[in-house]
This record gives sequence, C-alpha cells and structure tokens, in this order.
Amino acid sequence: MLAVGRELLIGRTLNTNAQWMGSRLARRGTLLAEIETVDDNLMEIASGLKDCLRRKPDFLVVVGGLGPTPDDMTLKGISNGIGRGLRLNKQALSMIKEHYARRNLGSMEMTPARKKMAILPIGALPVSNAVGTAPGVKLELEGTTVFCLPGVPSEMKSIFKESVEPEIAKKLGSLHRKYISLKLEGIYESALAPLIKTELRRYPGAYIKSHPRGIREGKSRIELDVAVVSEHKEKAEEVAVLIVREIRSAIEAAGARVVSERVGPPRAQG
Amino acid sequence: MLAVGRELLIGRTLNTNAQWMGSRLARRGTLLAEIETVDDNLMEIASGLKDCLRRKPDFLVVVGGLGPTPDDMTLKGISNGIGRGLRLNKQALSMIKEHYARRNLGSMEMTPARKKMAILPIGALPVSNAVGTAPGVKLELEGTTVFCLPGVPSEMKSIFKESVEPEIAKKLGSLHRKYISLKLEGIYESALAPLIKTELRRYPGAYIKSHPRGIREGKSRIELDVAVVSEHKEKAEEVAVLIVREIRSAIEAAGARVVSERVGPPRAQG
Repeated sequence: MLAVGRELLIGRTLNTNAQWMGSRLARRGTLLAEIETVDDNLMEIASGLKDCLRRKPDFLVVVGGLGPTPDDMTLKGISNGIGRGLRLNKQALSMIKEHYARRNLGSMEMTPARKKMAILPIGALPVSNAVGTAPGVKLELEGTTVFCLPGVPSEMKSIFKESVEPEIAKKLGSLHRKYISLKLEGIYESALAPLIKTELRRYPGAYIKSHPRGIREGKSRIELDVAVVSEHKEKAEEVAVLIVREIRSAIEAAGARVVSERVGPPRAQG
Repeated sequence: MLAVGRELLIGRTLNTNAQWMGSRLARRGTLLAEIETVDDNLMEIASGLKDCLRRKPDFLVVVGGLGPTPDDMTLKGISNGIGRGLRLNKQALSMIKEHYARRNLGSMEMTPARKKMAILPIGALPVSNAVGTAPGVKLELEGTTVFCLPGVPSEMKSIFKESVEPEIAKKLGSLHRKYISLKLEGIYESALAPLIKTELRRYPGAYIKSHPRGIREGKSRIELDVAVVSEHKEKAEEVAVLIVREIRSAIEAAGARVVSERVGPPRAQG
C-alpha cells in the first residue's frame, strides 16, 4: 500500500485504512507486504511509487489524493513517476456525471474541478465508486496491478471489496494460512526466547512472533502469534497446532501459564 | 520513520507510534517526511532501510524489533543492509545489566537472549532506555542520523523525547510553522477547489489541504488545513492569516459557512 496524504504524516489522521486492508488480506491468507506513507507532493508520490514497484509486488494499492482539489495530486504524481501523460478518460467522466445526477448534487455542470477526477494516466482504466464521486483507477505497471483508491474510508472500502479483492482472490488461488494466538502470563520475553526452539521457526511457511504486553499484578504478560501458510489447508493447520503444542508444553514446564488460546487471525488492537 | 513489525501489516496493531511522532514533529515545526512499514524479516528490513536512506533525510527513526526474541531482528537487518558486521557493545551490555539489577527482575544471568540486545552494528552507540530493557541505538549513515527505538510505545516515546528530539531541535534551529484549521459547512470539495486561488498555494512555504467530512443534515462538511513554514515566526503567521482571510471571504461569498477556526497544529483524529 502506498498511502498519500500529509494528514497521516502530521498525526492528524491515524492510518486506519492500512489496518483495515491489512487485516482483510490476512484473513484471506495473504500479507500486505509493505505500507509506505508519503506527503501529497508530486515528487514524493512519484518516488514512493518507485519504491513500491521496486519490490515487484503482484498488487499495489495507492490510497488517497483522487479528489477534485489541487492538493489531490496522486494521479499526476503517478504519471510523473512512470513517465506517461494524463488524458481525460470518457468512461471516468461519465461515471462522475452519473454520480452527480444520481445524487442530485446541485449543478450538473462539469466544472474543471469535477473534470479533474476523470483525468487519468494514459492506459489506465476507471473503477466504479459506488459511494463517492472520484472513480478508482486501475493500471498495469511492470507486472504489478496498481489500484488507486480514494482516501475516504467508506469509498476506499467499497471499491476495495468490489473491485480489488476479487482480483487478489483469483491470483491467490489456493493459499491457506492458519493463525493461533496465545496469551501468556508469568514469563518475560528474554526467558521465552530460548523456549521457542529454532526448529519450530524452520517449518516452511511458519511465523512466530511475541508481543510484550506489560506487567499486571506483578506478572509479565505476552501475546504470542503463530501463523503457518501452505498450499494445503490441512498442512497449515497441522503445523500450526504442532508448533503451539510444543510452545505450550515448554512454557508450562518453565512454570508460566497459557491464559488463553485463540484460533483465527489476531484481532485488531488500538 | 521505518516501522518494523508484521503486527502493523496484518492490522493487529494500529501504527499509533507514527501518529504520535508525526504530531510531535509537526508541533516542533518540522515534518515526518515518510513512514515506511515492513515485515520483521531480514531482507525487508534491509530494503526498507535503503528506501529510507535514498531520500537523504537528516534523521531516520527505525521503530520496533529490538527485543530479546529471534523475531526481533532489526539490528541484524540493518547490519545486512549497510554491509557492516554486528558486535557485542559493552556499554549496551552494562545498560541491560543495570536494567535487570534496578528492577530486580529475577535472575541476573546474562542469557544469550538478553545479550542479544547488546549486539549492535559496528560503529553504533547504545542510547539509554529509562523505561524498558532494550537500549535504543544510534548510528550515522551517509549523512543521516539513524535512531533505532523499541516498538513498545512507552519505551519509544521515552527515548524519543530524551535522546532524539534534542538532536532534531538542534538541527532545526529556528524554523517556524503556523497552522490554522477551518471547519466549513454547505460546500462540496469540487466547489471549494476553484475558490482557493492558485496564488495562495504559491506563497513560499504555504500548504493548503481540504478533508471532506461527509454530509450532516443535508450539508456537506469540510475541514481545511492551512500551514505556513518560514524562518521568521512573524512571516509564517502573517502569511497564514492572509491565506485564511482570503479563503474565508471567498467561501462566504459562495454562500457557505465557516463554522469554526482553530489556531495550532490539527488535532489527531481516529
């Protein structure tokens, strides 16, 4: 994800869009590989785009900066970054007209500000926005499918669900991910570390991560996430269960306690 | 900022660290230029570091992955990224010992997991952590001062305030930023766009950004941020006030309403 907008850099807005998208992708069994956040500035957008494309992702979602005002400059920044011109897209223009007609939003006149939202990089396609005005934008760049979505959360979510996720799902095919989370009590991270044997981390597709959660009533608390990805659902499950069983018995042998075990992607936390 | 941790990519954790740091820097009159978030994986950390250094920032703050467990691999990732070895740092080791002694946290033994937190890239210096165990780390790379801080918010904040901000303040010298935010009612972004005259955006150091805030009781609401940066406090103030006055009168002439005006950095919002 490339998030565009100074509001994210000055702490005005928390990047809840990234959290939402990351957790949706995790539930699908894939991973948001990187989140890059840049200022709304043509050079920053262009260089952020290049950073993201350099890693050759299957998909890149650019969020923010598609609106009618001059501070919305994502498409121009992208066009600079890839060295392609911008052109008025008729299909996008009719989507915008239709939006104003449907909502009966005052004058139907296609002012320059409204038209601006239909000016796309050459070769890009507009993507229908059922909630707001600015269409999403889709373009193929060096093997990466790039989607540009508005930053307004309701619009971003709607276009992501309707138009982005189906394509990701198609690409993903049959990858499965199994998640198990444990809450531990009475053990410090430095004591936990040697209990998680290196062999466990070496299982193909396995990921183990601990999060210290402070001390309550004199007892150190930790949350421990285990995730296993595999092309076979049963394999993912089997390995995850095995890893958790090993960790559990090591922890109990060390005199600490597993307070709870939860199956499924870790829940979002503030 | 380079934030390290899968929890941020799967939506388990909201990046409130970035919001906190961004808003602190904004209040100081400077800007967090970029936030990059990567997985806890050696290659991802190394390539994220390179992305961040490529823009030659004065400061880079790397957050997360300094703890004792094997999933804490920020320092190894950095060392790979810059092609420098890792070495046990005696000063860091004594900080860690002191932490355990001070807190009386069970055994004083320097286990490999505890020692790990003192193994720094060659040439790096440890930075005292008054709140937790893992010391921060400071190193100079190609004209950028890099600080690595723990991801636990209380530890990150404590080291940032004590050791990072003073250096940023010194570098900043006397740069001043003036912020004014307006809440508007009864105008759409596409109608607002032409009212903000291009000349206003051309003032040196001026930044104007609108945020649509939905429709309430049939009236469209927008928040509009104006920021002006200058070496002279009076100049920043003067230009910001002038811009706001111009925008205000254009908006009122268009039949819309300025509901409120607020001086100071925009407040954080969920």
